[in-house]
Amino acid sequence: MAVVALLALAVAGVLVREVLAAGQGTERMQNIARAVQQGASAYLARQFRTLAIFVILIPFLLYLLPAPSTGTAIGRSVFFIVGALFSALTGFIGMWLAVRGNVRVAAAARESGEKRAMRIAFRTGGVAGMITVGLGLLGAAIVVLVYRGDAPAVLEGFGFGAALLAMFMRVGGGIFTKAADVGADLVGKVEQGIPEDDPRNAATIADNVGDNVGDCAGMAADLFESYAVMLVASLILGKVAFGTEGLVFPLIVPMIGVITAVIGIFATAPRSGDRSGMSAINRGFFISAIISAVLVAVAAFLYLPSSFSELSGVSPQIASVTSDPRLIAIGAVLIGLVLASAIQILTGYFTETNRRPVRDIGESSRTGPATVILSGISVGLESAVYSALIIGAAVYGAFLLGFGNVTIALFAVALAGTGLLTTVGVIVSMDTFGPVSDNAQGIAEMSGDVEGEGAQVLTSLDAVGNTTKAITKGIAIATAVLAATALFGAFRTSVETELARASASVQGALGSFKVFSLSVDSPNVLVGLIIGASVVFLFSGMAIMAVGRAAGRVVFEVREQFRTKPGIMAGTELPDYGRVVDICTRDSLRELATPGLLAVLTPIAVGFALGYASLGAFLAGAIACGTLMAVFLANSGGAWDNAKKLVEDGHHGGKGSEAHAATVIGDTVGDPFKDTAGPAINPLIKVMNLVALLIAPAVVAYADNPGLRIGASLVAVGIVVGVVVISKRRSASIAPAEDRPADREPEQIPS
Amino acid sequence: MAVVALLALAVAGVLVREVLAAGQGTERMQNIARAVQQGASAYLARQFRTLAIFVILIPFLLYLLPAPSTGTAIGRSVFFIVGALFSALTGFIGMWLAVRGNVRVAAAARESGEKRAMRIAFRTGGVAGMITVGLGLLGAAIVVLVYRGDAPAVLEGFGFGAALLAMFMRVGGGIFTKAADVGADLVGKVEQGIPEDDPRNAATIADNVGDNVGDCAGMAADLFESYAVMLVASLILGKVAFGTEGLVFPLIVPMIGVITAVIGIFATAPRSGDRSGMSAINRGFFISAIISAVLVAVAAFLYLPSSFSELSGVSPQIASVTSDPRLIAIGAVLIGLVLASAIQILTGYFTETNRRPVRDIGESSRTGPATVILSGISVGLESAVYSALIIGAAVYGAFLLGFGNVTIALFAVALAGTGLLTTVGVIVSMDTFGPVSDNAQGIAEMSGDVEGEGAQVLTSLDAVGNTTKAITKGIAIATAVLAATALFGAFRTSVETELARASASVQGALGSFKVFSLSVDSPNVLVGLIIGASVVFLFSGMAIMAVGRAAGRVVFEVREQFRTKPGIMAGTELPDYGRVVDICTRDSLRELATPGLLAVLTPIAVGFALGYASLGAFLAGAIACGTLMAVFLANSGGAWDNAKKLVEDGHHGGKGSEAHAATVIGDTVGDPFKDTAGPAINPLIKVMNLVALLIAPAVVAYADNPGLRIGASLVAVGIVVGVVVISKRRSASIAPAEDRPADREPEQIPS
Repeated sequence: MAVVALLALAVAGVLVREVLAAGQGTERMQNIARAVQQGASAYLARQFRTLAIFVILIPFLLYLLPAPSTGTAIGRSVFFIVGALFSALTGFIGMWLAVRGNVRVAAAARESGEKRAMRIAFRTGGVAGMITVGLGLLGAAIVVLVYRGDAPAVLEGFGFGAALLAMFMRVGGGIFTKAADVGADLVGKVEQGIPEDDPRNAATIADNVGDNVGDCAGMAADLFESYAVMLVASLILGKVAFGTEGLVFPLIVPMIGVITAVIGIFATAPRSGDRSGMSAINRGFFISAIISAVLVAVAAFLYLPSSFSELSGVSPQIASVTSDPRLIAIGAVLIGLVLASAIQILTGYFTETNRRPVRDIGESSRTGPATVILSGISVGLESAVYSALIIGAAVYGAFLLGFGNVTIALFAVALAGTGLLTTVGVIVSMDTFGPVSDNAQGIAEMSGDVEGEGAQVLTSLDAVGNTTKAITKGIAIATAVLAATALFGAFRTSVETELARASASVQGALGSFKVFSLSVDSPNVLVGLIIGASVVFLFSGMAIMAVGRAAGRVVFEVREQFRTKPGIMAGTELPDYGRVVDICTRDSLRELATPGLLAVLTPIAVGFALGYASLGAFLAGAIACGTLMAVFLANSGGAWDNAKKLVEDGHHGGKGSEAHAATVIGDTVGDPFKDTAGPAINPLIKVMNLVALLIAPAVVAYADNPGLRIGASLVAVGIVVGVVVISKRRSASIAPAEDRPADREPEQIPS
Repeated sequence: MAVVALLALAVAGVLVREVLAAGQGTERMQNIARAVQQGASAYLARQFRTLAIFVILIPFLLYLLPAPSTGTAIGRSVFFIVGALFSALTGFIGMWLAVRGNVRVAAAARESGEKRAMRIAFRTGGVAGMITVGLGLLGAAIVVLVYRGDAPAVLEGFGFGAALLAMFMRVGGGIFTKAADVGADLVGKVEQGIPEDDPRNAATIADNVGDNVGDCAGMAADLFESYAVMLVASLILGKVAFGTEGLVFPLIVPMIGVITAVIGIFATAPRSGDRSGMSAINRGFFISAIISAVLVAVAAFLYLPSSFSELSGVSPQIASVTSDPRLIAIGAVLIGLVLASAIQILTGYFTETNRRPVRDIGESSRTGPATVILSGISVGLESAVYSALIIGAAVYGAFLLGFGNVTIALFAVALAGTGLLTTVGVIVSMDTFGPVSDNAQGIAEMSGDVEGEGAQVLTSLDAVGNTTKAITKGIAIATAVLAATALFGAFRTSVETELARASASVQGALGSFKVFSLSVDSPNVLVGLIIGASVVFLFSGMAIMAVGRAAGRVVFEVREQFRTKPGIMAGTELPDYGRVVDICTRDSLRELATPGLLAVLTPIAVGFALGYASLGAFLAGAIACGTLMAVFLANSGGAWDNAKKLVEDGHHGGKGSEAHAATVIGDTVGDPFKDTAGPAINPLIKVMNLVALLIAPAVVAYADNPGLRIGASLVAVGIVVGVVVISKRRSASIAPAEDRPADREPEQIPS
């Protein structure tokens, strides 16, 4: 296993060399690329410094939680750090190459044409994909090899480290990218009427940096996390179901995924017959999906016995299940693959320019921005329902494969998740393709050095990148939901184990065996459910608010630069790009703390204050509501984006018309929806489920100790409230002080 | 009891006479008022004709569902019709007087000043309040007097009739009012730059009609429904907990509510020391709340024994509970009253002009409409969380009063609901005050006959009306959640009873006693939860979409009239108001079918296809997600509305500035949020819980008959899908055909 993981990393190395060997274009292009590289590195460096405190502090807290043995407790803390480092590394390397690939793609478009440009862009993405699967598999493989039977507890630490860091990178990157993007659009396109990526706009470099730290580093870390967490959940459930033997198959599936991803990435080479770049990408995706399915079937027949009773170390209850484990495994993995394809089609329907929903939004632009917003929101709400139902059907289908046995059913859900994730290598590549081609387009535009056919090539690559970004978003949500559901299953298993132990230890005298039931018998359950759904609403609201605030500061800064340096507009003076990058960096790091702590501390507060049944309902509420909210936000945003493109393509009056202005407003509203709040919900639900899983034994142990419970929950609630209050105070002024007096009317608002 | 109910109706009669006796102002004012009256009556008449099919068909279907006896089955069907008629009557009478009160308020403002105008406006509202509580209590009292022990089953029919009709009135009225409002604003304010309520705008009469059919008829029916449903739930739970004696106290509390509402309505008379109209209204509200609390305490000591064991016909399990039932009852009712006050304060904080959230939205108008939309959405999302937590805390608090006994706990929740609803008389009055003063202002503006001080009086009354509307919305949500939770409890009780009966009938041979548990043991539960939350998303999306479509048609009609009748703008020609009223009527009636059927049929599909555990999770998901969504939509909308008012009051550039245009867009987006989708979620969750309660015995009975289950669910799913598809087809063209060629660019969108 570790060998396959290292193979993936080696492939990444080969791809890196190929990308770096490509030409870098003119000096102006290189200068711009360097500015983006510096901004991106500066941001990540500062972010890692900020997050270091968590990586240092949390292992100690983790160590205090109950564990099977001291060795596993130490391992859990150590592998928390490893998970966090791997997550950071995935994001860092992907981005490091993306900010170098972008200029090379632009240069290739200028010098050699579409095929070569596309090849470099996709190879750049391929590195991120290979790193993601390589590091994920490597970490899990090492843990299993070292700890064997005790692996699950240690893996919880590994998964939590990966998830926590990914969440911070997702939220921080999401705020950065959209603050810069929205700010740049508001002053540039709307106020000054200059095009996107115009070098006179002080926010353009920050915008390009943002694409990398958000879409590239953030998404790679997010998918790495899903990958790691999914492995963790399937190994935990596999261990429960089949003992140590249950650790083998969940590792074989992702190994297959690594191999097929390599094939998929190399298969993504444009051919002469292709209608657009999407054909090549789709080919890569479906080739790797089909090969995965075939190889999984082969592996199932090689590694799994034909009946459960042949498994050694299996509980008698499971040994009595008569169905064929090989068919169950194949079925589960297929469900995952079918789900990935279904999501791809559904997301396409709701966000592509030539389909009904986006055309309707375009149509509504004839009656102004308000109707654009309204139709986008209703499209998003509706699409969320279909995606949620498909994901729900996949979970249900996987569960049915358990044929009534809950343990097998949960394991099937986890396997469906790993099936979905065999495509993750290709998906990360597809996603990284987005910011790379977006940046290449930006660099070409800013330098003015790419013209004619080359410029056209980049525009079409940029459009392909938009589609791949939308699709990966949909699939990322599906992986997050499956991962969270599997973790939820692991949480439930853990609570039941602890309850059984607790009731055994009191010899049935005091505690009759408590069944873990999410029954309405207890008010806790409905209240837990409401709190779980609430966290999703609060988190989304905070993320959107953060972007609004940070974008406001960017607007004031850019306005200020236009005012104080009149030469900028004339083109005789360069704007100070660095200041905007600084503002975005500072603001996004400041804003990510509150939602981050919310995710970690609410499960603790609910678990200790209201008990394990509440905590279970809390997780269920968060998963159900989070799925819907994430799809709603992603698809509304995607639909608005493409409705704008539709108008820009000449419909309803084309560029510069009232309809265009209306869709630009829709697009701006959609930016934080689709790139900040929506994607951040994925790590949110995974982190909350992981935290619940980690504290489950403690929650059960303290169930009969009101003092400890109330103490722990008060501390958690106190921290959440404190952080929320502080963040409100700190952000009391949207505009920088020096901007206010000039801009503001004299009269004060009475309070 | 019936006597008190008749007393309420008598008071209503007295108030009607007082209102009608007032002067009606100039002839022009009377003409305008007459147009509004005709439009409103025409709409309601057509709506009732459309809905008649349900009122005729459903009783037969209801009759087919299992019932304790044939007598109760017939009673259930008959009282379904009674409930529907009462619901319709409440809406009709409230609106009938509102469209007559409006012109009298305008006339009073013109002739006698603020006090008199306010008095008439509030008395008009008082009629709606009295009718609501009078008819609600009357219906429930008759059922209990006639059917005694069998009352619960019959009450389900009564509640369902009230709820179903209210839902249709809410959705239809909501679509009508906002289609007219949004359409009028888009053409009038945005395109032509003419003020609101300008007689040259063909949509103004429809806008005024809409205020009445939406805010007045719709809200009155909604609150009547909450009132009826709450009574139904508390009587069912009371019967389960305490036998026939449990039917007494739940009826005494609303009796007290009637008495205090009368006092509250008469106490709402403006005094000379008042700062604004709100002082008088707040006085009325709090006086009636305090009197309610005192009277409930007295009643508890008069009618309840000091221990549960003194109750006759009580189960031994409950008789053994040692706590004092009187204190439990008083505590529960107090929780309801405190909840009403807390919601009032919280809603005020998030939507009032001089508080931080609205000021922040106002501030964001300096960077354009996109930031206004974003900040409004994040304010709404955040406020939803706090409201949901407060409501959750109230449910939790009421549950704790059960001291571990589930039956008593559920009854306490229902009592808290009735406590909340003792204020409903005053609340409906407060709410009806809104459209009446809004209309009065409109009539004054259109006629041009009210000037100087009179006009100012009407403007200030209109502002008060906006606040009362926002507050009643918050309280309506709280009542809906409590009513739904109590119904949920009744549903659970019913399932458990049926399960116990089923397992008893097979003599323990086949079925071991199945505990009703919402456990994750079954995938059904998580899937049910997701579907429940999905319905809320889908329903909201559909309602918003419907308004967008209907508003589009209004826009095209008004534009058409401006184009074909150039005399309108010059003031020499009158626009054809009737056509816009017609469009709104037709569209809203067409659009209400899909969401309505969705509410009725999804619980049936889930219940039969996935079973009772799924259905329970479905309801829980709908309640949790519905609470959040309803508050989010209501408060975002309210905050945008007041942010616009803030700018109009001279902040950030005042009327006509860029900031003002940005907030107008925000307000337009908020209109269907706060007045269509948001309020429609209340009846949605109540109807779904009622349907589940009605089908519970059948779902349990068919649990082991896959053929019947699958058949029933396929029919339900088929109808839902069919209706959705048909509604999509039918609405394929947003613009009327004749409008298209002229308006559209020649090139076609490639598909």
